[in-house]
Amino acid sequence: MTRDPRYDVLFEPVRIGPLTARNRFYQVPHCSGMGRAWPQALAAMRAMKAAGGWAVVNTEYCSIHPSSDDTPYPYASLWDAGDVRANARMTEAVHDQGALAGVELWHGGNYVGNLASREPPIDIMSLPSRTDPVQSRVLYKDDIRALRRWHSDAAKRAVEAGFDLVYVYATHAYLLDHFLSPVSNQRTDEYGGSLENRVRILRELLIETREAIGPDRALAVRFTAANLGGKGAPTEELREMLSILGPLADIWDLVVDDYTLEMGSSRFVEEGAQESYLAGLRQLLGKPVVGVGRFTSPDTMVGMVKRGVLDFIGAARPSIADPFLPRKIEEGRLEEIRECIGCNICYASNSRGNPIRCTQNPTMGEEWRSGWHPEQIEPAGSKDSILVVGAGPAGLEAAVALARRGYAVTLAEASDTLGGRVTRESRLPGLAAWGRVRDHRLELMKGLPNLQVYPASRMSAADVLGFGAPVVALATGAAWRRDGIGRLHRAPQPGFDSAAVLTPDDLMSPEVPDLPPGPVVIYDDDRYYMAAVLAEKLALGGRAVTLVTTGGTAAAWAYFTEELDRTNARLLSLGVTLRTSSAVVSFDGAGAEVSCLFSDRREVLAAVGLVTVTARSPEDLLYRQLIQNPAALRDSGIRLLQRVGDCLAPALIAHAVHAGHRFARELDASKPWDAARRELAAP
Amino acid sequence: MTRDPRYDVLFEPVRIGPLTARNRFYQVPHCSGMGRAWPQALAAMRAMKAAGGWAVVNTEYCSIHPSSDDTPYPYASLWDAGDVRANARMTEAVHDQGALAGVELWHGGNYVGNLASREPPIDIMSLPSRTDPVQSRVLYKDDIRALRRWHSDAAKRAVEAGFDLVYVYATHAYLLDHFLSPVSNQRTDEYGGSLENRVRILRELLIETREAIGPDRALAVRFTAANLGGKGAPTEELREMLSILGPLADIWDLVVDDYTLEMGSSRFVEEGAQESYLAGLRQLLGKPVVGVGRFTSPDTMVGMVKRGVLDFIGAARPSIADPFLPRKIEEGRLEEIRECIGCNICYASNSRGNPIRCTQNPTMGEEWRSGWHPEQIEPAGSKDSILVVGAGPAGLEAAVALARRGYAVTLAEASDTLGGRVTRESRLPGLAAWGRVRDHRLELMKGLPNLQVYPASRMSAADVLGFGAPVVALATGAAWRRDGIGRLHRAPQPGFDSAAVLTPDDLMSPEVPDLPPGPVVIYDDDRYYMAAVLAEKLALGGRAVTLVTTGGTAAAWAYFTEELDRTNARLLSLGVTLRTSSAVVSFDGAGAEVSCLFSDRREVLAAVGLVTVTARSPEDLLYRQLIQNPAALRDSGIRLLQRVGDCLAPALIAHAVHAGHRFARELDASKPWDAARRELAAP
Repeated sequence: MTRDPRYDVLFEPVRIGPLTARNRFYQVPHCSGMGRAWPQALAAMRAMKAAGGWAVVNTEYCSIHPSSDDTPYPYASLWDAGDVRANARMTEAVHDQGALAGVELWHGGNYVGNLASREPPIDIMSLPSRTDPVQSRVLYKDDIRALRRWHSDAAKRAVEAGFDLVYVYATHAYLLDHFLSPVSNQRTDEYGGSLENRVRILRELLIETREAIGPDRALAVRFTAANLGGKGAPTEELREMLSILGPLADIWDLVVDDYTLEMGSSRFVEEGAQESYLAGLRQLLGKPVVGVGRFTSPDTMVGMVKRGVLDFIGAARPSIADPFLPRKIEEGRLEEIRECIGCNICYASNSRGNPIRCTQNPTMGEEWRSGWHPEQIEPAGSKDSILVVGAGPAGLEAAVALARRGYAVTLAEASDTLGGRVTRESRLPGLAAWGRVRDHRLELMKGLPNLQVYPASRMSAADVLGFGAPVVALATGAAWRRDGIGRLHRAPQPGFDSAAVLTPDDLMSPEVPDLPPGPVVIYDDDRYYMAAVLAEKLALGGRAVTLVTTGGTAAAWAYFTEELDRTNARLLSLGVTLRTSSAVVSFDGAGAEVSCLFSDRREVLAAVGLVTVTARSPEDLLYRQLIQNPAALRDSGIRLLQRVGDCLAPALIAHAVHAGHRFARELDASKPWDAARRELAAP
Repeated sequence: MTRDPRYDVLFEPVRIGPLTARNRFYQVPHCSGMGRAWPQALAAMRAMKAAGGWAVVNTEYCSIHPSSDDTPYPYASLWDAGDVRANARMTEAVHDQGALAGVELWHGGNYVGNLASREPPIDIMSLPSRTDPVQSRVLYKDDIRALRRWHSDAAKRAVEAGFDLVYVYATHAYLLDHFLSPVSNQRTDEYGGSLENRVRILRELLIETREAIGPDRALAVRFTAANLGGKGAPTEELREMLSILGPLADIWDLVVDDYTLEMGSSRFVEEGAQESYLAGLRQLLGKPVVGVGRFTSPDTMVGMVKRGVLDFIGAARPSIADPFLPRKIEEGRLEEIRECIGCNICYASNSRGNPIRCTQNPTMGEEWRSGWHPEQIEPAGSKDSILVVGAGPAGLEAAVALARRGYAVTLAEASDTLGGRVTRESRLPGLAAWGRVRDHRLELMKGLPNLQVYPASRMSAADVLGFGAPVVALATGAAWRRDGIGRLHRAPQPGFDSAAVLTPDDLMSPEVPDLPPGPVVIYDDDRYYMAAVLAEKLALGGRAVTLVTTGGTAAAWAYFTEELDRTNARLLSLGVTLRTSSAVVSFDGAGAEVSCLFSDRREVLAAVGLVTVTARSPEDLLYRQLIQNPAALRDSGIRLLQRVGDCLAPALIAHAVHAGHRFARELDASKPWDAARRELAAP
């Protein structure tokens, strides 16, 4: 196929200082959860983006000095010769695929705790790190001189490592950001006060970094282009800064000062949400501008270029969900694009200190470890036909991936609709985009004649035994528990067997069980999105809702996806009452007894219904029936019977998709999957 | 000096199966924050314990298989040959110092999320991991067979790595623990139900591990010997378990089922607090028993042995605070013991994914990285005399360490008392043991005639310039801010300049400023112990107290020191009202205006006083005065003027002691301190 001419503009080469990017697709710096810890995995992951057509591929935040140590989070670093070699792995791999490699030089200021380097953090004020009981020391003038030297030295190491673009990173509440703001910058020397003084450090670093990288490399800057909510200087001042600084960099990577907007999840933020803040700045700067917006629609991208907002389509998450996004647009294969669902699980990987994963793209993070390619898969290792039972995220992905390998696959789904939990959950407030997990796979199915799909086909054990497929994958999902058992309770709680106790499954079913009018209590021991989304649904339906959670806030785990603040804000704006660090310990149809986690205080909240969001039970009855009779199983000709996804171990949709994919990859594989594959210091 | 004969019993050799421990000092398995990530640092740290006289030195939790992956926490592992080599570093280093090396083989069950290995966790039920949205899969019989094989294989690798003791780890809410409990074990096969069935897996693992390690190695088991609070089976059942299992292991490492007791901080738990739970079990088992109790007093230790409670004095924290504890007792140098203060900062290192540090022992974690030895220090590199200003934790440590190096040191303290913040804070409820940080250094001073100490000697800039010391260290501390600036607020808050706004310093001063009778609000944006301890003090003094915190709970960071539950429980038991996820935004002498972090809800709480616990300002006026006149500084003959500790960068007492020690080590050092020294995968 060929490209639609209306997307031609996206494939124009664009100059960045002395360099030429082959097109407008630009992977902005983004966390990988790999950083300095997993150099081979990182190089393979970044190179996959380059192979997929991105013109520029950047690192994550890359520390210039031990005084900027974000342990335990897996940041990159360019402290010494060892780091140069580790980073060169990435630049070489990216260059091999015809892309430019960029590095985001970074100093965290008081944001970091330097937990491993044990250096005092540095900043313009002495303030605590975001998490740890460690304050920064105040930069005196000789410290600023040292900082400039560190930055130049790191820039030289970046060149040595083979980077084409070198960033000065002046946003995201890190060190340089604090100089720019008239609120945080209370210095009385030439680095504080007037606008000219506040931009001095950035100006110096831009000039000195350019000197360090020489004429053949490009200089980039990441910068806050709009202050929202009156927290900082007025926009006029920012425009003045940009007009002073504009000429000094070859490319401007612009963000707004609300990280929950910049990388907002799809629950809270639409595609292209930064546009109104960035409009007009490109003209002011007179330099190429890149910006993000969870862009997956090529029409939206074209609009951003045509309207003169952006020169480069910046992407973190869309390039994670589909490293081959540019190539698919180029080749006119739009329907094959694996669109980001905006769930932010990728971000949570770094926040939890582990290599990146993606809900839509199960190969993300497996490029080196498992040798998985997002677009290529090993041909079938046998002629066996395969039965997949259950068309949720695990079953859909397994069936599609197996069919791509060339197996004859039958996918049997008990219900009328495909997608399982994805379909159910995407009907909840804010989660519509999650339906893309299903839609992408349904789209791929169209090109797979060796995959037969049967909805409304519940399989009994006898059906499976009689089906005649030598390989059977059971992807029958999981059901939310009703008894209160979860992280806290290890035994059923009194009264939870009442008909007025509902689970998320009940509330997601087409026919929600009736409850009499009155208040509802949600008991959350899951601590992620589900209880909050159900609270939202019930509140929008007019219910008085109290969310009782064992966490310290609603949706405590959503801290890692950067959704905590907006989730709590939304619940409060809807009038939901929050009871934190608490648990429901009994229910009698009229009231839910709530117990404090730290004391013996108990209180009964009036409630006509109780919704339990605690843990899930694997729906593995079919599996248990099948293994109950080993002889019948043997006689059936089934050589492999395996549970896949939630029916084995309930987890996120990301895990279910990964499990389905893994099953498909592992079947008759020439190389086994290696869960132990790590990168560790030389023993 | 020689040993006091009443401690002879502690130095008797004791048999552990086929082995003989040289004495009764036993470093139980404890987290290091190093694990598989920092093998050289780990080996050096463990070897230091062996050099200090511990007879047995163990690893931390050591994973047997990728299905037990506690990423991002730095656990140890024995998954493959690379791990064998990494662990052999430790066993060789420990053997070189004449001690036995033990390994705690570990499977985390549903406690872990397997964030890097991406294997589903396994357990006897499908339940969420402690933190992440990942549930375990249920162990079927073939899975249990696999588990047993993994354990045996890991035990063989342990032998290969040179370990003398191999553990089966059956407590602390990890996998094996769940089999033992009649509550969590609801299996209906031969691994569930009766006591005999519930102990089956442990019995099998003990037998098979012994087989795997052969006759020359010893078999250890870590086991919950008492269920507190009726959460588990009655003690009678536990005694029955122990009598069945007793003969199968060579040594029993006994704990209770309350981790906040077992490793309780000194705020909540006394030395030897487990004794009453462990009494009598040694007789029942007929095997050597080891147990912990934050033992630092040799008399208490002797009592534990003489009363037949323990054969081995188990220690984690006391061995961290003083690796040379056994040798000091042996050599009759009791006064030199660096006693653990029970602050649990060591534990927080692992909880925060970074190498271990210690408040009392600044060399902890620096054995490999910096080559620091807790008992040895490089001789002075010059004849320069040194002035240290300020006798808080940084100044005291710097002065003592410099004097140990042989420098002529003068320590000038403005106030009448030594210890600075240590002395002030140790007067607060529960913090008396923290005074040991001061006391240890005062004790060492007695043997250092080249250290002169002058209390009540406030130094002006002129005094310093005229003093004549070429090296001056300023350790003048920090003061709590009064204006509300901290993590949240970046500008002073309205009304915080009222005389009724107090800081922790005010409340710790000998003369607490008077407040009229009435309620007090504490505004906490520090999120560690200080606000909670002050709330306790005020509540004990009869005040009505509301603690308003930006955290999701009171003392949110105390989660990492395992003090969160007990802190919140104590505050509630004292009647303190908690307002979480909130901030104080103004104060007018009669009321504190509290704002929700997630909405625009505001409420005024009646308050005759407001206590701000937000951030601290370095007390660096003296420094600023001295550098204001470079000529005078030059003329004074001062060649080095340096700020040390809180007056540079306010942090914990641990950081201050470390900073003081670092200053002393770095002066004229033959080898510079290297903040960048890491262990990373081969680039």
